[in-house]
Amino acid sequence: MSNGCYYSQGIHGPYDLLELGDFDLESGFRLRGAKLAYRTVGTLSPAKDNALLFPTWYSGTSKIIEDVYTGAGRALDPSKYFIIIANQIGNGLSTSPSNSSAPFDRAGFPPVAIGDDVVAQHKLVTEHFGISRLELVLGGSMGAQQTFEWAVRYPDVVKRAAPIAGTARATSHNKLLVQTFIDSICSDPNWDGGWYPQGESVHRGLRRHARLFAASGFSPKLFATQGWRGLGFTSADDFVQAFVEAYFAPHDANNLLLMLRKWQNGDVGRQANGCLKTALSRITAKVSVIAIAEDSFFPLADIEAEQTEISGSDLKKISSPWGHLALFGTDPGFNAAIDAHLGDLLAS
Amino acid sequence: MSNGCYYSQGIHGPYDLLELGDFDLESGFRLRGAKLAYRTVGTLSPAKDNALLFPTWYSGTSKIIEDVYTGAGRALDPSKYFIIIANQIGNGLSTSPSNSSAPFDRAGFPPVAIGDDVVAQHKLVTEHFGISRLELVLGGSMGAQQTFEWAVRYPDVVKRAAPIAGTARATSHNKLLVQTFIDSICSDPNWDGGWYPQGESVHRGLRRHARLFAASGFSPKLFATQGWRGLGFTSADDFVQAFVEAYFAPHDANNLLLMLRKWQNGDVGRQANGCLKTALSRITAKVSVIAIAEDSFFPLADIEAEQTEISGSDLKKISSPWGHLALFGTDPGFNAAIDAHLGDLLAS
Repeated sequence: MSNGCYYSQGIHGPYDLLELGDFDLESGFRLRGAKLAYRTVGTLSPAKDNALLFPTWYSGTSKIIEDVYTGAGRALDPSKYFIIIANQIGNGLSTSPSNSSAPFDRAGFPPVAIGDDVVAQHKLVTEHFGISRLELVLGGSMGAQQTFEWAVRYPDVVKRAAPIAGTARATSHNKLLVQTFIDSICSDPNWDGGWYPQGESVHRGLRRHARLFAASGFSPKLFATQGWRGLGFTSADDFVQAFVEAYFAPHDANNLLLMLRKWQNGDVGRQANGCLKTALSRITAKVSVIAIAEDSFFPLADIEAEQTEISGSDLKKISSPWGHLALFGTDPGFNAAIDAHLGDLLAS
Repeated sequence: MSNGCYYSQGIHGPYDLLELGDFDLESGFRLRGAKLAYRTVGTLSPAKDNALLFPTWYSGTSKIIEDVYTGAGRALDPSKYFIIIANQIGNGLSTSPSNSSAPFDRAGFPPVAIGDDVVAQHKLVTEHFGISRLELVLGGSMGAQQTFEWAVRYPDVVKRAAPIAGTARATSHNKLLVQTFIDSICSDPNWDGGWYPQGESVHRGLRRHARLFAASGFSPKLFATQGWRGLGFTSADDFVQAFVEAYFAPHDANNLLLMLRKWQNGDVGRQANGCLKTALSRITAKVSVIAIAEDSFFPLADIEAEQTEISGSDLKKISSPWGHLALFGTDPGFNAAIDAHLGDLLAS
């Protein structure tokens, strides 16, 4: 159960809902009356040849993607492109533990895979909008996982792809890191196996999770240079509490856990009997893989190891003291670099 | 309360105990009947001019220091040097929560500072052994914190110093990281504010703590290259469980928490009214600061920022996929580099 009205149009809107009806998951479970929440910015051209797809990252919604990455004069300019921002399953806007009815509510919500999101988004793009080819699929972190999955599953639909700060297959180190995030929430006795009555009940676990997220999500340099001062925080402790703990406080623990397990199991190799190399060889899109040099969630070397397996792809490196969480848009330098790389890719 | 007989001569010996008697702490508390456990290797010369001091790191004891860092043909050769390995307060061999009597047992054990260890070790060195000058003080991680504290507090005693993979003042990022370690243990309801009856009771928290330690203690490269295969582990999960969880399983939670808080509060600046620069300027020892390039606990840049404030010091960088936990001695390349740097320093 979510905290009050956090997962609402008031806070995360406006967005639309696509009725997916009976939606069968990779796990073998069926979501009944499933809904995909999405936001569009810009206008679809009559030829339907100006569409981009941008799936959300862990804990994020279409709102922050729109705010941080789109705008007049930006690479993702709504006057030029029709930008579809898809909320991933479990993020609280699309079908999620927090908005499902018994017996599929809370801990009863079935496991979801990155591929499930991509199949649902494919319905949105091709059946709902009647788009046969996307000019660009892009996303950060778990959005990058979805981007890779798109490029591998639907090469004919994906003309260009820009996975940012994420991998096609979760590494063993990444799985361990995500396990520590899971641990930090599940260690709260009030989580109660997922059967807590109110989201607020799990606040201790959510606070721990936030601190852990901050400790590896930002680079040590951000702390050394007090880079958070520009945002008005008074100390490192204040920054972590007033920014990161505050951000996660209204989130639903089961939603976060569903996304964390999805993240942990991300692997396009499942499309090719477990062979990552074969799966990546199916990509025909023009791919710019974008990595953050200081990223501790998805280290540059892990990203580069995959990128070299993607024919014709290039690797763009961006440096930011904000580390992985530069994705949040707090670093103007990062935002400008992203725009430059996306602009180059879209022009190619 | 510790698990069975983990903190014993059988496992960590041999070692000796120095009776500190009434020992007053920085926190204002007094340890009564305090004991400092130490191990010596080699023979003190008649002139008492061949002594080295090597304090322990977080969770470690004199045993691993002796095994990994000393030996015939090594830089720390017992045929040449008298090597004093001092067990830090709270490590289970020296006076600790796990071996103290009520009301100072378990959560009743008072807070201890890095400076308290150094004062106790100073008694051992000068009063017990009658040594007026140490050829070298060195240590890794929390051992580096103690090394810096020695060099600042007792410049006349410290001829050379080699702080390895640690800082003189815990950075705000480091404090946050350590807080996540603290969180991982204290989140266990069985920890019960420190009043658990048996160490085994806190096993869930200790397991979480171990996973967290592994996630940032080793570099992602170790996982990417399956560097743990050489030690006989079968998978990344097996490595984390059979190596890191197994290592921490018999530890006492209150001992670990005492050391973590000591680590978190490490700051030689307290010797100079809070001014780190002034404190470091008091160092007269020849200092080689040694950093691990892949270290996520004590990042190279944070170490270098301090090193440049120490007059006449030099910075030695060692690269290891084992990251901070290369200190454990699992990487022959790291061990050889340490020997080379210590050999150079001792020859200077």
